[in-house]
Amino acid sequence: FGSSTTTSSPTQNVVVLLADDAGFEMGAYLNKYCQTPNLDALAKWGLLFNNAFTSVSSCSPSRAQLLTGQASHSSGMYGLHQGVHNFNVLPAVNSLPNVLREQSNGHILSGIIGKKHVGAAANFQFDFEQTEEQHSINQIGRNITKIKEYTKEFLDRAKREGRPFFLLVAFHDPHRCGHITPQYGEFCERWGSGEEGMGSIPDWKPIYYDWRNLEVPPYLPDTDVVRQELAAQYMTTSRLDQGVGLVLNELQKSGFSDETLVIYTSDNGTPFPSGRTNLYEPGIREPLIISSPQPNTRRHDTTGAMASLLDIYPTILDVFRIRIQNDTRLTGKSLLPVLEKEPTPNDRDTVFGSQNYHEVTMAYPMRMVRNRCYKLIHNLNYWSYFPIDQDFYTSPTFQQILNATINKQPLPWYKTLLQYYKRPEWELYDIKADALERFNLVSKSQYSGTLKQLRQQLYKWQIDTEDPWRCAPHAVLQAQGVFKNDPVCLTLGHEA
Amino acid sequence: FGSSTTTSSPTQNVVVLLADDAGFEMGAYLNKYCQTPNLDALAKWGLLFNNAFTSVSSCSPSRAQLLTGQASHSSGMYGLHQGVHNFNVLPAVNSLPNVLREQSNGHILSGIIGKKHVGAAANFQFDFEQTEEQHSINQIGRNITKIKEYTKEFLDRAKREGRPFFLLVAFHDPHRCGHITPQYGEFCERWGSGEEGMGSIPDWKPIYYDWRNLEVPPYLPDTDVVRQELAAQYMTTSRLDQGVGLVLNELQKSGFSDETLVIYTSDNGTPFPSGRTNLYEPGIREPLIISSPQPNTRRHDTTGAMASLLDIYPTILDVFRIRIQNDTRLTGKSLLPVLEKEPTPNDRDTVFGSQNYHEVTMAYPMRMVRNRCYKLIHNLNYWSYFPIDQDFYTSPTFQQILNATINKQPLPWYKTLLQYYKRPEWELYDIKADALERFNLVSKSQYSGTLKQLRQQLYKWQIDTEDPWRCAPHAVLQAQGVFKNDPVCLTLGHEA
Ligand SMILES: [Ca+2]
Ligand SMILES: [Ca+2]
Ligand SMILES: [Mg+2]
Ligand SMILES: [Mg+2]
Repeated sequence: FGSSTTTSSPTQNVVVLLADDAGFEMGAYLNKYCQTPNLDALAKWGLLFNNAFTSVSSCSPSRAQLLTGQASHSSGMYGLHQGVHNFNVLPAVNSLPNVLREQSNGHILSGIIGKKHVGAAANFQFDFEQTEEQHSINQIGRNITKIKEYTKEFLDRAKREGRPFFLLVAFHDPHRCGHITPQYGEFCERWGSGEEGMGSIPDWKPIYYDWRNLEVPPYLPDTDVVRQELAAQYMTTSRLDQGVGLVLNELQKSGFSDETLVIYTSDNGTPFPSGRTNLYEPGIREPLIISSPQPNTRRHDTTGAMASLLDIYPTILDVFRIRIQNDTRLTGKSLLPVLEKEPTPNDRDTVFGSQNYHEVTMAYPMRMVRNRCYKLIHNLNYWSYFPIDQDFYTSPTFQQILNATINKQPLPWYKTLLQYYKRPEWELYDIKADALERFNLVSKSQYSGTLKQLRQQLYKWQIDTEDPWRCAPHAVLQAQGVFKNDPVCLTLGHEA
Repeated sequence: FGSSTTTSSPTQNVVVLLADDAGFEMGAYLNKYCQTPNLDALAKWGLLFNNAFTSVSSCSPSRAQLLTGQASHSSGMYGLHQGVHNFNVLPAVNSLPNVLREQSNGHILSGIIGKKHVGAAANFQFDFEQTEEQHSINQIGRNITKIKEYTKEFLDRAKREGRPFFLLVAFHDPHRCGHITPQYGEFCERWGSGEEGMGSIPDWKPIYYDWRNLEVPPYLPDTDVVRQELAAQYMTTSRLDQGVGLVLNELQKSGFSDETLVIYTSDNGTPFPSGRTNLYEPGIREPLIISSPQPNTRRHDTTGAMASLLDIYPTILDVFRIRIQNDTRLTGKSLLPVLEKEPTPNDRDTVFGSQNYHEVTMAYPMRMVRNRCYKLIHNLNYWSYFPIDQDFYTSPTFQQILNATINKQPLPWYKTLLQYYKRPEWELYDIKADALERFNLVSKSQYSGTLKQLRQQLYKWQIDTEDPWRCAPHAVLQAQGVFKNDPVCLTLGHEA
């Protein structure tokens, strides 16, 4: 560190705008109904990623991934941080705010506004913190006026102290809230709308959507219930979008726009079937926009580069010219080169996934590798039923699926609930031909070469990242003592 | 607090002697081969419990149980604390050292010598700590000379400062070490023995056992391999016993013996099949001796009282006359009344069990209720194979079972490995008639009343203790927001 003042690069700062459970409900991603002019403008001013994926489809693990560059199974953030779940990263794990402080001798200012949702506190020490630890989660995560004001406070401090900065604005929108405060709507879309009993968020101009005029994604049943859910989700997404506009406006007013790299993404898939907590496409594909102030940056452009949210950590360190430590658990790569030039697509371009717990009671670890054509999922607890989280359970969409199943009524859905619950140990999909991941190719002989290659790639990644589950489910890992320098998987004889 | 100085009770202090993975390898428990003169003497001077049970058969969760009075699912210590497992109690959970300090205005001195294995640090702050956090685990947990010296140091300080004390001496013996340092023997039984390359523990007089002259417990195969394991375990247990003698001798020399209540127990079952990580009898039945300095205490006596290690926390608070907080998660009761008078046995005497993770990869939660006649086990992830931990996996006993199974060779064992792996959702045993828990009565109509009653008792305990798994595996718990005052289990429709 230190070269930033001697180089001609204008980029001094990073702002990450993080949505909570958002998907592609944006004009920039060709959604014709959900109005997101601020995100669309950001996309126009920057580079839009069409192949960005989170490595884990759960809130705390995903945020830990962003801030540590490590997969869920490496960081120790195996599931949710809050309440009885109580997951924390391993004591030795370092994170962006801590690394930036250490590597800049305290020069870079770090801040977080909104939903933090990771711990332990010592592992994630931002210089400026306004989160659910100081506020109610709705006030700090959905009240865009409050978010705007704290953004101004942070930027004023950065200017006053003359410090480069990393700011994470972590919206709670468009997360569900129906299982906790249904009076505000399933997505808290009416909270602060100015309607009777809803209070008012001064800067928010609510947009109401007609559920009849929507396009239902193919992985959801096209029913009135689902449409009404989507309309509510869009309303909340538009609040998020206006919040993004307010934050970017503060950045503009502060004079930092011309020297700040801005990233927009979401932590995990939307809270619908096959989405959040799944490694299916709706669970892991993420919106990603990067807008750079560099003169040679790509603008008004989209990229097909395969990107992982594990790449955000090395990208931000790259902005600050901090060399990444030599650690095989850090498998991401800086995305800054993509901002300059579209990389040549390659069959070996891959992203990886690792899902473990979400709620502590939801033991359904999965591993995934995906390239441009194929995806392989390894379900480690495939014997069990796929777990359903509290939040998703009460959603009208899941309730409709559940009740139709119990009452043996037809439902316009591409799966049965039993198929959703009971998954084979291995799932192999030709994503290009079968975007909905309906046809498992794992036992088709013509794909045996693909299967073998993906299994090898996945296992190598698990070894590189020291996955505690890398021998599961049919063997035991031995990695201590006499096995320390040569860890092995030893069979449990399940098949005997 | 404060009445202790104004009462006539001589009991001022508590010493807990905790073994690691020990069972009933003691003369006092009628083992004719393993020599434990110091434990036997303690048993003669105190009360020996014949019906003591841990609520969880895993190291960190059991220690958290002892120190917090809470079941594993309440405390948040769902599995092992160290390394990648990284389990910690929930932030708000209080523990003996902290409670004793708070309730005595810092007067009671707390200390731990040996294996701590719980966290986070703030939740378990002893005034005096000499543990694996400062030492190698063998040095602080198996070197009985070192343990003796630190005991003296602690007692000297208590005397110098004139403070009542709570001291936990947590031996690492007779834990296995074969998967890490097999050169010292499977139980580290030769570490410090004075043999070549083994180093020497000055105060230890090793006792070697002839494996031909042993009695093999009925739940283990009677093979040479198992006998050799037991001989090694006995050798380590005798080191533990001599350590107990050294600690009690320091207590004597310090003059505290006449005012100190001494408890001996073990954290979990022995590391053999059906033992540790199981809720079968070998996994949960524990040795328990309580020796009190009270004049009216029972001595040279045994009790049939049903005791849980969840009772240790309220027992120790009772010694210090600290009123236990009103908290339904604290389901234990003080054992001090048992020291005065044998309670009348009652059909409703019950103990409960809650096993969750052990290693973080070993998701096999179980719940258990046991009275004097019957035991009911609920296997929440019964679809899966029972998990095998790294330590147990490499044990010669398990290796013999595994290899015999793979090679389809006969084995003098009461189960097959497949039976051990694959368990039904519910297991009901008539313990009195079927101590080995071989005959599952769950579908026998004549036991339907017993089954119903035990299920109700177990479910009530899960509710009282706010078990996050209380709706598992076929329903989802809703306990927040609109459900907060009236939590419910809502069906997943698995059977639909
Ligand atoms: Ca989320
Ligand atoms: Ca233990
Ligand atoms: Mg998303
Ligand atoms: Mg034991």
